[in-house]
Order: sequence, then structure tokens, then C-alpha cells
Amino acid sequence: MRPSGRSTDQLRDVRITRNFTKHAEGSVLVEFGDTKVICTASVETNVPPFLRGKGQGWVTAEYGMLPRSTGSRMIREAAKGKQQGRTVEISRLIGRSLRAAIDLKALGENTITIDCDVIQADGGTRTASITGACVALVDAINWLKANGKVKGEPLKHMIAAVSVGIYEGQAVLDLDYAEDSTAETDLNVIMTASGGFVEIQGTAEQEPFSEDELASMLALAKKGIADLAALQNAALES
Amino acid sequence: MRPSGRSTDQLRDVRITRNFTKHAEGSVLVEFGDTKVICTASVETNVPPFLRGKGQGWVTAEYGMLPRSTGSRMIREAAKGKQQGRTVEISRLIGRSLRAAIDLKALGENTITIDCDVIQADGGTRTASITGACVALVDAINWLKANGKVKGEPLKHMIAAVSVGIYEGQAVLDLDYAEDSTAETDLNVIMTASGGFVEIQGTAEQEPFSEDELASMLALAKKGIADLAALQNAALES
Amino acid sequence: MRPSGRSTDQLRDVRITRNFTKHAEGSVLVEFGDTKVICTASVETNVPPFLRGKGQGWVTAEYGMLPRSTGSRMIREAAKGKQQGRTVEISRLIGRSLRAAIDLKALGENTITIDCDVIQADGGTRTASITGACVALVDAINWLKANGKVKGEPLKHMIAAVSVGIYEGQAVLDLDYAEDSTAETDLNVIMTASGGFVEIQGTAEQEPFSEDELASMLALAKKGIADLAALQNAALES
Amino acid sequence: MRPSGRSTDQLRDVRITRNFTKHAEGSVLVEFGDTKVICTASVETNVPPFLRGKGQGWVTAEYGMLPRSTGSRMIREAAKGKQQGRTVEISRLIGRSLRAAIDLKALGENTITIDCDVIQADGGTRTASITGACVALVDAINWLKANGKVKGEPLKHMIAAVSVGIYEGQAVLDLDYAEDSTAETDLNVIMTASGGFVEIQGTAEQEPFSEDELASMLALAKKGIADLAALQNAALES
Amino acid sequence: MRPSGRSTDQLRDVRITRNFTKHAEGSVLVEFGDTKVICTASVETNVPPFLRGKGQGWVTAEYGMLPRSTGSRMIREAAKGKQQGRTVEISRLIGRSLRAAIDLKALGENTITIDCDVIQADGGTRTASITGACVALVDAINWLKANGKVKGEPLKHMIAAVSVGIYEGQAVLDLDYAEDSTAETDLNVIMTASGGFVEIQGTAEQEPFSEDELASMLALAKKGIADLAALQNAALES
Amino acid sequence: MRPSGRSTDQLRDVRITRNFTKHAEGSVLVEFGDTKVICTASVETNVPPFLRGKGQGWVTAEYGMLPRSTGSRMIREAAKGKQQGRTVEISRLIGRSLRAAIDLKALGENTITIDCDVIQADGGTRTASITGACVALVDAINWLKANGKVKGEPLKHMIAAVSVGIYEGQAVLDLDYAEDSTAETDLNVIMTASGGFVEIQGTAEQEPFSEDELASMLALAKKGIADLAALQNAALES
Repeated sequence: MRPSGRSTDQLRDVRITRNFTKHAEGSVLVEFGDTKVICTASVETNVPPFLRGKGQGWVTAEYGMLPRSTGSRMIREAAKGKQQGRTVEISRLIGRSLRAAIDLKALGENTITIDCDVIQADGGTRTASITGACVALVDAINWLKANGKVKGEPLKHMIAAVSVGIYEGQAVLDLDYAEDSTAETDLNVIMTASGGFVEIQGTAEQEPFSEDELASMLALAKKGIADLAALQNAALES
Repeated sequence: MRPSGRSTDQLRDVRITRNFTKHAEGSVLVEFGDTKVICTASVETNVPPFLRGKGQGWVTAEYGMLPRSTGSRMIREAAKGKQQGRTVEISRLIGRSLRAAIDLKALGENTITIDCDVIQADGGTRTASITGACVALVDAINWLKANGKVKGEPLKHMIAAVSVGIYEGQAVLDLDYAEDSTAETDLNVIMTASGGFVEIQGTAEQEPFSEDELASMLALAKKGIADLAALQNAALES
Repeated sequence: MRPSGRSTDQLRDVRITRNFTKHAEGSVLVEFGDTKVICTASVETNVPPFLRGKGQGWVTAEYGMLPRSTGSRMIREAAKGKQQGRTVEISRLIGRSLRAAIDLKALGENTITIDCDVIQADGGTRTASITGACVALVDAINWLKANGKVKGEPLKHMIAAVSVGIYEGQAVLDLDYAEDSTAETDLNVIMTASGGFVEIQGTAEQEPFSEDELASMLALAKKGIADLAALQNAALES
Repeated sequence: MRPSGRSTDQLRDVRITRNFTKHAEGSVLVEFGDTKVICTASVETNVPPFLRGKGQGWVTAEYGMLPRSTGSRMIREAAKGKQQGRTVEISRLIGRSLRAAIDLKALGENTITIDCDVIQADGGTRTASITGACVALVDAINWLKANGKVKGEPLKHMIAAVSVGIYEGQAVLDLDYAEDSTAETDLNVIMTASGGFVEIQGTAEQEPFSEDELASMLALAKKGIADLAALQNAALES
Repeated sequence: MRPSGRSTDQLRDVRITRNFTKHAEGSVLVEFGDTKVICTASVETNVPPFLRGKGQGWVTAEYGMLPRSTGSRMIREAAKGKQQGRTVEISRLIGRSLRAAIDLKALGENTITIDCDVIQADGGTRTASITGACVALVDAINWLKANGKVKGEPLKHMIAAVSVGIYEGQAVLDLDYAEDSTAETDLNVIMTASGGFVEIQGTAEQEPFSEDELASMLALAKKGIADLAALQNAALES
Repeated sequence: MRPSGRSTDQLRDVRITRNFTKHAEGSVLVEFGDTKVICTASVETNVPPFLRGKGQGWVTAEYGMLPRSTGSRMIREAAKGKQQGRTVEISRLIGRSLRAAIDLKALGENTITIDCDVIQADGGTRTASITGACVALVDAINWLKANGKVKGEPLKHMIAAVSVGIYEGQAVLDLDYAEDSTAETDLNVIMTASGGFVEIQGTAEQEPFSEDELASMLALAKKGIADLAALQNAALES
């Protein structure tokens, strides 16, 4: 029995709200249950120095948590003058995953910067961030097209992300904080809408996990990604 | 004629939403028109080292803006490893103002940390922050009372803040970004609900301002603070 | 009775010594009683990147205190790798105020950097800094004119600064440390020699202050600024 | 055909040299072909503040590269004052993996800090680091036992790490730099000597990878880990 | 012929002004010609953590230059968030030299922090700093004695410092900036008043220097130190 | 009697291994007994901004110690975000000394960066670093010549470095850690192979040292440098 009463292969209520803030070219509030993240996509019509003159674009991402998005207040990283290792790691993961969704040549010499800022955390902030960010990215690409900055199609495929884990001996989908904090194994899976793997990252929190457990988790992830891809599509069509 | 069509002594639509996020002891979304700030109040039942054993509490504040809360994306301060001077200055202003609302002795050896995070900016983020933060502060104090951590009454008076300025030669209340970016003078006024001054800070952006202009601006501020105090009360009673 | 025996509208002994050090284009030692600040103005015949090609100049300021300028030694900010919030706030105030004295177009593509370094502190370091810096600024402008780098007149008006406050229930001018550390209210006023307001910044340290108290303080400030303007003129004519 | 002429399931020449430097409680030079890493394990007989009084120990790790361990010189992170994101991410991975090898309760209130410093890089520095570090960790544990600081057995199981990837359409084991820099997919696998998964982390560098490709890579990794475990044992017995 | 017209073994005009600022336990303005440094000695009646309970005191030093103490303005180290290597090196030299003057056991558990802040630079700032700092140190020790914090005699011997160099082929004493910037060799010598060496540090700026040149420079240094020791004594007796 | 049993004028076993790592243009492992330093020389065919267009090259150096190169683990400077003062000081010393060996005009617009990384420390790391770095520097110059980047001869003379000191009342050559940690005086001497002084830096750790002691130490240093120069030559000829 999961703390939330969900079945093992059931996502939390997922809501994707586009145009959440007014300035960004793409702005999405993504909610995986009580986990809430603002994902914005900001367009610049140039590229960082290391890419100048190479005829391609760039996608990068930064992640942050509001100090009191969590149960006890965390130190504000800007005030401390240093990001935590976890923050750096997640920022890199989001950027790397989204670049896998994009044909950087077709993007032309434009940069899209994704900001994922967690306003309320209840487990799975990185997977919610990627899932929401991909929608914001599409809106930014559409802005580039509408403004004549991009001719072809930079979007290779939609991507979404979900966590799976072994909780009390059983594989479960989309762990919330109550599960995540005690799970034996935690695996984040990022896939394309058509079922290709973009990134998998799994850690045995307590005991090593077996090939069978890995297989069970991957099967749940595949199901969850399909559900999320449908929700992304619905949001983009609305 | 103001860009928004408001009369000179008219506030923007102000909304104060309590319990906006679930973890903080006080959590308020404050909106002054399109300016939106999440204000949380976090309680710790101890005090910073410089106050230990002095039998009093502490109230402090930190301010930040999401990178794309503004028209063009700002660098993320946490990633750069340094807060801008403006951020530091506003954080200090918020903390100083809120301490003026509180009897630190009556607070006992407890610390309340206010975080004001701007998710969308359209002028007046510091005044919206203070106005919303005072409501979150009251909720945190009520939490302390309800949990038996505080016996007396730490709240001396409610405070609110509003900007006034000289825009196209005329004193106006609660400047939005369209006004703020071209105003000749910009004055931030923080007052108690009963009309005492807590802080005034005014800058001649172009030409020096006169005593008459100062008087006109202060009169508008007084009116605006009264309106805001009523809205704070309504929110606290709901 | 003030600790120093001064009347309520009396400045401390103010001394303005030009050409205090030999390298800077403008170099002033300003003394407000025991508060002593070295103010230098350094000229560069170019502008920062954000102003290049705009046909205007720039004025900026930095403030610092020698570690033992105060009663107990403060940490050296350079060694700590971080400026205090107060330092940042005062640096910004000085720069903003001095820019109000200057026609940046008439300055041409030149930058003047003001450094205010407190060698001995006894209250009012920011107001002494601004008052002395304006004299150093004039010397630097004269250097630019003498060297044919500036044709027109960049100086719009002289500015000076003074603190006023409510000390033991009474409005007083130019607070020293003994007064400042216990004042109920502290207001810094920066005005032009002709009586226009450039900046006012006031804080209720204990109880809110009233409109009447504000009026009393502003009247004292006006008187003090007139006295300081006369001293600045005398120094520039000597 | 692999650039090195190796078969698809063949490790590079792996050498594990114990007691490489004289001061550390465990000191190993690990070589995976031309990749060379010094792994030291340093013992402190206390724990970090967050673990005090909990009756358990701690294992943590830091990773670095000498500036000219690579083909072109990298900036020295200590001189820049900031570690790269990649460095932080790998440090965290090494620490997390090694903690999975240890019963922290049995370690008692002792801390073992692992330093992995790459003196020459040719691909696979993180997997070589973990493989060598586990041997240094065992030496440090033996030092703790020999000095009577630990009574029970903190080592739960040996771990080793290897990279696998899809190179020119084929799954290959233990990628060198020539392969790594052009691989389509790169997967790092950390397992126990008995075949349990401790961590898997895989990224599609170009196109998404399929379930079949994942299965092929995992099979190679299992074979490679078995070979590495044998080499670790041989080193520890010598 | 030296640019200043001095003979080869002639110091610049040296002035040592005690009680230069009012807060510090020792405060000296030292002038070596146009080089002017404020040296303060600050007493704390405790020791840094690494010396607690060892029954001895500590002497440490920090050095800085006002941004416009030099011909062209230097970046303010506090604003940049980092001290230059030269600043760190000189701070360490001053502290190390002064500790050689002191019996740390006799100082008891007290710390004296020396701040040397250059307000005008014309060569030889480090040697002027040490020479002035030793006088400030004596004043601080006398303060400790007068306040009953120290019983015995912590001062082992007075120290002074002077630069010597090879300028246009000839050994000269106490180089000013005009000489220093073109000298072939620059040697800083710190000696006790009785002629023992505390520190020597010499660099061949262009060609290597010979044993004979070293001997000539050391002879000049010895003469200069004797002159400086007499000036220190005179200042302390006044 | 020295702890190592060496005679007073005897170096430790010195080994200089060229081509120690494969990527750098010059790569040397230098060993002075148990002190082991990797010295690499990295070539860039351009110069830093301050030298652009001046028709000369640059040589600079950075020094570091692996965290567990010493008896107890030191904090990793990259993780702390700050280099120690000692590290900065030694980096500057190495760079300054090596520039004395080079005709920067003849080097052309090329930069050679020397990295000295201590993998095991037993006293004398800075002198071993300079001695090894000069060999790596020669290899890098030969690479520049072989690749047609340099026409003339940038090497003016070989340099080497050695420490001398007063240990138990007697002058000794090449102090190891056991001697260094208790020596009364420590003098680092850097000379050309032909006996000219490049840098001397000596500190009285306890009591001031006399002219006679200085003379004894310099005589030993001269002998040691001659021995080291012979070893450098042998290494370069092998």
C-alpha cells in the first residue's frame, strides 16, 4: 500500500499550465501532485562564445529551489554565494536531456535557456522539471518560428521524465516525498514520447538492486512516460 | 493620463492569497497588478549566535527574483555566486521594516525568516514584498502562539509599503513598470496601519524634487497605505 | 543637551582638505568632527561596456572602512572576499547621488570613479563621504577641462549630505556616534546647494516617526546643507 | 573495429598499485590503460557535525584532475575559485557509490575521505577512480582495524565500476577517449563483486537508445565488473 | 645620480606619527618620503581557535592599498571579492616578521592584529609598513601592560625593514618608485635593531646578481636599519 | 647528526624523470628523496591580453598539493574555493624564477604555463618544483622549436633551487620535513647553473640569524645548485 493510496503504476495528478508568467517566450507551471515547478524558456538570438560561427544553437538549463519550498528552510544559494552539488547536478541533467530533444543545427544561432524553479517540493522535482520544461521549450520554439528566427523544425521529439523506485520491496511509479525518502532504490528515467531512452540514472539507496528489479522499474517508467507524453500533448493543443 | 488608465491616487488591483504553499508557517502570494511575489515566513525556535542568551527573538529577510521574472532574463545570482547590490539593499530594507513591526522581546528566542521571491515583476516589487510579508509574518506569529512557543503579543502594528513618484510632472501612487522606468522621482514609503512612518526612501532620478512635490507624494502614500492596510486585514480575517 | 554640547542645529567642525594625496585627479580629506574620510576621484577617458558608443560619461562610487576605523576592529572585507550589505548599500547611494550632480552627456565618454575610504569613524560617514566626494568630483572635472577632455560644463549643481535624527525626543542635526547609536530615528538627506532634494532615506530605529517629526528634521537638514555648501565653496576657492 | 584493436568485451590493461604514496592510510594508483588516477583514503577518528552522536561513521569523496592531465590544459579549479559542474557531479557519484559498500554503523564514529586525483586522462576517469578507491578504502578499513578503532566488519561488499557504450553501432566495454568522444551512448555501471547494481547512469549523446541496446550494454558491464573484481582481489592479496 | 638626488646610502625623509587615529590601541602614520601607510594595532584578549589553551598569544597582519594610492587606480579588492597574490604575500611577510619581534608566551592569550593600509604609494610600501607597524605594536603592548593584561615583557627586540637594490649598476638604499620600477635587483631586508637578520627576500628583476652585489646591498641595509631604529626610538620616546 | 644520516652538504637522492605524462609538451616527475612533484609545461601559441602585440612571450606557474600529499589531509583548495596564502606565494615564486631563465622576446608570442603538483611532500616542495620545472620548460621550448614556433634561443640559462637552513646550530643543505619543521632558519636559494643569484628568501623561524650564518648557508646552497645543475643536464641528455 502506497502512502498516497495510488496503485503501483499510477502517476500523481499532473497539471501543466502554459503561459504561467507573462515575460518568458515559454512559461509553464508543472505540478506532479504537490510538487510545483515554474519552468520558463528564454530566447536569445545569439549563442555563447564557444559556439560562435558554427551555425548551430544551444539549449541550457538552470534549476533552483525557493528556500522554503521544502519542509525545513534551506539556505538561499544566492546569499551563500554557492550552489549545492545537487543543484549543479540537476541543472546539468535538465540541460543535457533537453538538448537530446533538439536538432541544434535547425535551431540556428539562437540560445534557449530553461529555468526550473521549484516553488513547492514533494519528491520528483527533477522529473517534473524536465516534463514541464519540454513544453516551455516547444512554446519558445514556436515563438522563434512565429518571429521568423527559425525556418526548419528544431524539435526532434518530445521528452518526458519520471521517477521509479523500489518501495517496501515493490516497484512503484512517480515517488512522492514520503516514498522517496525511504525508497530502497531510486531511478530517474527520461524517454522520448516514442519510447527511446534519453537518460537513466539509478541509485541503490540501501541494498544493491537486481536485474529483475531494474526490469520492473523500467517497465513502469515506460508506462508513466506514455501517460506524461499524452498530458504534454493535451497541454500543447489547448 | 497614466499608462494603465488609473487615477493618480489609485492602487493597482491588489490580491493577497494566504497559505499559498504548504510547508511554510506563513505563506502569501501577493499581487500588485502584474507584480507577483511569494512571501514565506519560516520559524526556527532559536536565535542567531549574536543574540543567544539575550532573551529576544529576530526577524530577517531575503529577497530574490526568478531569472525570467523580468522582460529580459537576468543572470541567476546563485549560479554567478554573488547577489547584486540591489538585491542586498532590498533584503535589508524588508528585514529592517518588518523588525519595526515586532516587539523582539515578546517574540522570545525565536527567529522568523522572511523570503520574498518575485515570480513576475512589473514595478514595485519591494513594496509588494513588504506588504505581503507582513501578512505572512502574522501567520507565523499565530503558528508560534498556537504551538505554545510565544506567550505575549509580538506584533506591535501592521506595516505596509507603497511607492509614489512624480510621473510626467504629477504625483502618482503605486507606479507600475511603465511609469517607474521613466519617473522623475521615486519614493518608497513604509508606514504602520495607524499612519506612523517606518521608512522613507526617495531618489530624484532626473531633476531634484521640491518640498511641495515631497508633500504631494507623502499624501498619496498615506492614502495608499490606508487602502493596503484594509486589504491586509481582510485577508487575515478570511 | 547633546553629548557634544552642540545646539540642535549645529554641525560638527567640518574641514575639507583638497589635494590630500598626490596621484588622484581629485583628492579630498573630509572631516565631520572625528569622522574622517579620504575621497578620491579617478578619471578614465573611456566608459564601461554598457555605455560604449552612447556619447555619454559615467560616475560611480565605492565605499570602504579601514578595519580599525571603528571602536572594535571589523573584518577586512577584501580578506573575507565579500563586502557587507551596508557597504554595498552606501556605495550605491554615493554613486547615485553624485550622478544627480552631473550632466552625463556633457561629461563625454569619460568615467569618474569616486573612492570614499573611512580612516576614522564617529557617525555620519556616508554624509561626510558625499559632501567630500562632490569637491573631489569638481577637481576631477577641472582636470578634464584643463586637459581638453571635456568642452562643456558637466557640473549641474553642487550637492551635499547631512544626517538628521530624533535624539531623546528632539530633532538634531549631524549626529555623531554617541547620538546615532541611540537615536530613535535617523534620516540622511542629500540636497543641491540650491535646496532641491536629491535623496532622502529615513528609518525609524525604534518607534515610527510622525509627519511633524519629519518636518522638523527636514528643516534642520536644509539649514545644514546650506552651511555645508558654503564650506564646499570656500574649499574650492582656496 | 575499436581504435585500440580490443575486442568489444575487453578491458584495457588495468593495473592497481597499492601503497603508492606514503602518508595516506590507503593509497592506490589505478591505471585503466593510459588513464591514471591516484586514489587515497584518509582516516579521521571523528565524524562531521551532522552525524555527531549518532553512532555511525561517514565516507565521502572528492575528485579532481591535474590541469594538464588532458590533451589541452584546463583551468586550475583552485585558482579559479570554483569547481566545474562535472567535478562536483563525479565527486558526489564516487562518494555515494562507496557508501553503498560500507556498513556505516559498523564503521563507528570514523570518517574516511577518498581523494581521486587524475594525473593522466584517457577516458573512463570516474570508473577507474571508483575501482581504485574501493581498494584504498579497504586498506583504510584495515588500518582502522589494526589500530583498534573498529571492531566489526564495515565492508559489506567490494564494488567496481566500468563504462559501456554504443560505439559505431556496437556495444563496447571500457571506452577510451577515442571512443568516448564519439560514442552514441555512454553508460557508467557500478556493481558489487557479486553482481548487484549500485548505480547506473547512462546518457544518449546523440540518438535515444533502445531497450535492446541497454540490455547489450548491461551484459558487457557485468562481464567487465567480474574482471575488475578479480583484479581488485589480486591486488589486495599481494 | 639617483632620481631624488639622494646619496646611495641615504634614506628618504622618514616620519613616524603615533596616535594617528583614535580607536586603535596602537596607531601610526609612517611616511618614507611620499609613501604613506596607516599602521594600526588592534588588541583582542583571546586567541584564534588553533592556539586555544596553549598559554600563548598571536600576532598577525593584513595589508591593503587604497584603490587610488597608486598612479593609476587599482581595482578594489573587497569589491572584486579576491585579494591579489601580491597583497597576500605582503600580509604574510609583515605578520611573520612581527612575530619574530615577540615572545608569544609572554604575550599571554592575547591577539594583536596589525593593519597596514597604504594611502599613498611611492615604492617601499612593505618596508615602511613593517617599520611603522613595529611602533604600533609597541603601543599596543604598552596598552596591554597598562590594562593589566600582560605581566612580563613580550617585546624581544625592535625590528625595522628597508629595501636595497642595484640601480643603474650601483647598490642603493631605500628605493623610491622611480628607482624600484627600473631596478635590476630588489632586496627587502628586515633586521632587529641589534643587527640580526629576521628576513631577507631578494629578486633579480633582470640579470642574476652576484655575491659581491649581495654583499654591497646587505651593507647598505645594515646602515639603513640602524637609522630607522633610531627614528623608531625617537618616536616612542616623544 | 641529521635525522637522515646525510652529511651537512649532501642533497637527498634526486631523480628527474622526463615524459612522465603523455599530454604535456614538457612533463617531469622530480623527486628530492620522498618529496615528489609532477611538473608539466603547457604551450599556448598566444599571450595573455596584457602582452598582446608587444612581440614577446610569457611564462607563468601554478603550484598545488594533493590533499593527502602530507601527513594529515589538507582541505582541497578547489572545493573550498580559495587558495591558501602559501600556495599563492609559491606559485608566484616559481613563475618569477622561471621568467628569469627565459628571454621573453626570443620566446615570441607564446605562453608556457608550468604546473607543479605535489603528490608526496617531505620538505622542500618549492625548491624541487623549480628544479624540475626548469627541465620541463626546456622540453617545452624544444617542442616550440621542433614545431617551428620559435626561431632563436629563449633559454638564457638553466636555473635550480635548493633550501638551506640552520638545524641544531649548524648549516645544512636540502632540508627534509624532519629538519624543516624544527629548523631555526630556512633559506631558499635559486641560482643559475653558472652561479648567479635569481632569488633568495630567508626567514628566521626562531632567533635572528647572523651574517656568518648567512654566509655558511649561501656556500652550501652554491654547492647544492652545482650538483642539481649536473643532474638536470644528465636528465636532458638522456
